[in-house]
Amino acid sequence: LPVVLERYLEKAGVMQKLRPYLDASGQVKNEFARCLMAEFFGTLLFQMFGGSAPAKDTTAPAANGFALVAVIYAFANISGAHINPAVTFALICTGHMKWWKGLLYMIAQILGAIFGALIYTSLIPALHLGAGAGSPGCFGPSAGVKNGDVFGWEVMMTFLLVMTVYAAAVAKPGHGNTAPLAIGLSLYAAAISGGPYTGASLNPARTIGPAVVFTCNVGISFLYIVAEFFGAACAAGLSIFLYGRAPDSVRR
Amino acid sequence: LPVVLERYLEKAGVMQKLRPYLDASGQVKNEFARCLMAEFFGTLLFQMFGGSAPAKDTTAPAANGFALVAVIYAFANISGAHINPAVTFALICTGHMKWWKGLLYMIAQILGAIFGALIYTSLIPALHLGAGAGSPGCFGPSAGVKNGDVFGWEVMMTFLLVMTVYAAAVAKPGHGNTAPLAIGLSLYAAAISGGPYTGASLNPARTIGPAVVFTCNVGISFLYIVAEFFGAACAAGLSIFLYGRAPDSVRR
Amino acid sequence: LPVVLERYLEKAGVMQKLRPYLDASGQVKNEFARCLMAEFFGTLLFQMFGGSAPAKDTTAPAANGFALVAVIYAFANISGAHINPAVTFALICTGHMKWWKGLLYMIAQILGAIFGALIYTSLIPALHLGAGAGSPGCFGPSAGVKNGDVFGWEVMMTFLLVMTVYAAAVAKPGHGNTAPLAIGLSLYAAAISGGPYTGASLNPARTIGPAVVFTCNVGISFLYIVAEFFGAACAAGLSIFLYGRAPDSVRR
Amino acid sequence: LPVVLERYLEKAGVMQKLRPYLDASGQVKNEFARCLMAEFFGTLLFQMFGGSAPAKDTTAPAANGFALVAVIYAFANISGAHINPAVTFALICTGHMKWWKGLLYMIAQILGAIFGALIYTSLIPALHLGAGAGSPGCFGPSAGVKNGDVFGWEVMMTFLLVMTVYAAAVAKPGHGNTAPLAIGLSLYAAAISGGPYTGASLNPARTIGPAVVFTCNVGISFLYIVAEFFGAACAAGLSIFLYGRAPDSVRR
Ligand SMILES: [Ca+2]
Ligand SMILES: [Ca+2]
Ligand SMILES: [Ca+2]
Ligand SMILES: [Ca+2]
Repeated sequence: LPVVLERYLEKAGVMQKLRPYLDASGQVKNEFARCLMAEFFGTLLFQMFGGSAPAKDTTAPAANGFALVAVIYAFANISGAHINPAVTFALICTGHMKWWKGLLYMIAQILGAIFGALIYTSLIPALHLGAGAGSPGCFGPSAGVKNGDVFGWEVMMTFLLVMTVYAAAVAKPGHGNTAPLAIGLSLYAAAISGGPYTGASLNPARTIGPAVVFTCNVGISFLYIVAEFFGAACAAGLSIFLYGRAPDSVRR
Repeated sequence: LPVVLERYLEKAGVMQKLRPYLDASGQVKNEFARCLMAEFFGTLLFQMFGGSAPAKDTTAPAANGFALVAVIYAFANISGAHINPAVTFALICTGHMKWWKGLLYMIAQILGAIFGALIYTSLIPALHLGAGAGSPGCFGPSAGVKNGDVFGWEVMMTFLLVMTVYAAAVAKPGHGNTAPLAIGLSLYAAAISGGPYTGASLNPARTIGPAVVFTCNVGISFLYIVAEFFGAACAAGLSIFLYGRAPDSVRR
Repeated sequence: LPVVLERYLEKAGVMQKLRPYLDASGQVKNEFARCLMAEFFGTLLFQMFGGSAPAKDTTAPAANGFALVAVIYAFANISGAHINPAVTFALICTGHMKWWKGLLYMIAQILGAIFGALIYTSLIPALHLGAGAGSPGCFGPSAGVKNGDVFGWEVMMTFLLVMTVYAAAVAKPGHGNTAPLAIGLSLYAAAISGGPYTGASLNPARTIGPAVVFTCNVGISFLYIVAEFFGAACAAGLSIFLYGRAPDSVRR
Repeated sequence: LPVVLERYLEKAGVMQKLRPYLDASGQVKNEFARCLMAEFFGTLLFQMFGGSAPAKDTTAPAANGFALVAVIYAFANISGAHINPAVTFALICTGHMKWWKGLLYMIAQILGAIFGALIYTSLIPALHLGAGAGSPGCFGPSAGVKNGDVFGWEVMMTFLLVMTVYAAAVAKPGHGNTAPLAIGLSLYAAAISGGPYTGASLNPARTIGPAVVFTCNVGISFLYIVAEFFGAACAAGLSIFLYGRAPDSVRR
């Protein structure tokens, strides 16, 4: 079958166009292109399974936490598996990533989230583009929750997530093969406690994807995104005090 | 007691027949035979505990995710613990496994799933052979879910599972001793989100086993199986772009 | 404070009696005595937290699975943390443990379970010795479940548990620091699926402890215990085929 | 943006004051100061997410267990991530920590818990300072639970937690990168079983923080704290028998 498929793609002219970019084993030659692919597909899958989970007690936290665990395991050895523009932003702040590379990561992540939301739009009966607030994956404050509360929760939750990312996967020695688990479980815990107030986004791509696809909570989304980047910047700041900036970036 | 049992088996002539296939320590000499035994018993146990779990919120996802974790830990060092014809199919596609070995793996897996379903048929009161749709472990679309939705969910869920398998357990460096956990948690997350639509099979053996034992949803099972193999093939394709084909298979 | 306590014990004459058995650092000199202490306290804690957990969906499975994870991590480097006479029995069968050492392990485990049940008897309001069937930690078949079903479920669940023990913690290479997690999650999964039928004991000490303390289901307890040892023996048998007997036991 | 922020802080005179304490990479020079920062922020985050979790079945246990996992991963490589005065007390008892260092750890932990509770006070609608018993994170016995029961449960739960800490993270060889997981899961299991009786604190800082912020259960808090330290001392005692005192402390 795979040979059949490959021959079919060959006939259709797809393989000929791809070949210059692939080595003999079929791997994409350009390492950074592989990174962007990993961020795109990683965020797509994270949006797909995290965003479509039913919200109830530990149900959505488990789906989001464990989907993040799986997706980080799946793509960590390619791109580092940020899967989150706030994580990428923090790493730019601390000198672990060049800003233009980070910007391309973020674009790949946001496109991934949009495609992820598009896919479950087509797979969930009665769901459609522009379905508005309350669509799966949309974030907005619960009844009685003020904008300041949303801001504070998203800051604190993203702070926990990004501190865990630094300790587990960025600083040396980190936590090796258990890093993805550490990071996913920080989201699981945050989502149980903060979820009832903000829905627990912690991730600008996860905020933007459904907002674009369902035109939901567009006004408040900006607040979420600012809070997420701010929480990540706070974690970057504390991580500088605890671990220092990236070794090569000291002379920046 | 074990000595008693062994003597009893000796008397019954079972040990004499087995002896030529065993070394001095009692281990089955043929490595590939051990692999098939691992795939058979692994899938049997996975079907037994995953298929018989009550379906509710995180209950069935936890049973299936953690049963898969346990079973992969239990048999990974023998056969690689595919436990899933879609995983085996993907590894054939990327040149990590010879097709005829893979085919025997798949047969062992499907037989394991059938026996697993048979065992719980006998252990669950009032359940019987041919009990039809709704029997524990049977997969079928929920009310209002169209065939295209079933296809899409099973493709995406299997895609996540098989990408995690590649990154954690096939590509070098993988994720060592945490690989079974990564793979099981990808199923846990997928089953929370996709379960409400398709029941979350992700595994042709898990689809076939109960369909055979309970004669349930036989028509739709084919759709599940095609979707699962297709999702695995997509993951195989992406894994070629990210990691390349198996080193020895380049000159194939 | 610890110095105060130590002086108090010194005065009371406790330290003088202990001293001959301790080295300069306070460690118990006899390694096997440390093993028995680990099995006693490990099973005590496992009974205490596993046995007193409320039974609901994933609640009891999580408490039992994660208590087992914690207890194995806590005592694995002392005694191997069997915490279960069925595990010890399997290791005797495959030549990994001398029978008289195993017997002492089992006694320590059963005493631990009895003390664990005694402790929560005193800490749960309105619970008392001899409170009978339905007391926390007591095992018995659910309504409509026949003796044969109880036997089958306990065999299969213990089989899964002990296979995971062999692969993760006994065979070489095992799964290192993730072994306790693998074993605990096998119990978690088994307890979700089999719990509704038998309560999911998988462990003769866990069966005996509450039966002694609450005089509950004494008749049926024998069936549980036989099933658990039988399931463990089956796993020992399969493990001989897959890994062989213990290296030193071949010439036994 | 980070450059902008840094320049802004520079102008405001904050950076000038900090500079003498930082090395060229921005890291705080004094190692023990970094430890106290880690204990402060770690306990703050643990209080924030553990204390504000809704109490229901596995919901609060999961939030607390996984928040502890995340926080230990996040700060273990800085301060050892005690996050709990009872853990610090045990390590003083067994000679792993100087008493005055431990005292400063405890102060950092208690301040962290107070700030953590303050933060969610401001972020949860209608919650305010001094809101009294029943405020999120407050511990008190459930209806019908006597003081002796509270004492016993907290002793036993803290005993399990601290034994896991010793085995996983203090004794050699410990459990490496899986230690935080082991410790967090011991809390998860304890909280499922003991939570219905005492709320499952296991941690004097977690007891004190909300008691101070909400003036709740102040009388009973003393009992919790004594029980937690006593349980930790028991674990310290058993750990001396199993592993011996800290190597350097033998001649103390
Ligand atoms: Ca649709
Ligand atoms: Ca039957
Ligand atoms: Ca009592
Ligand atoms: Ca407020």
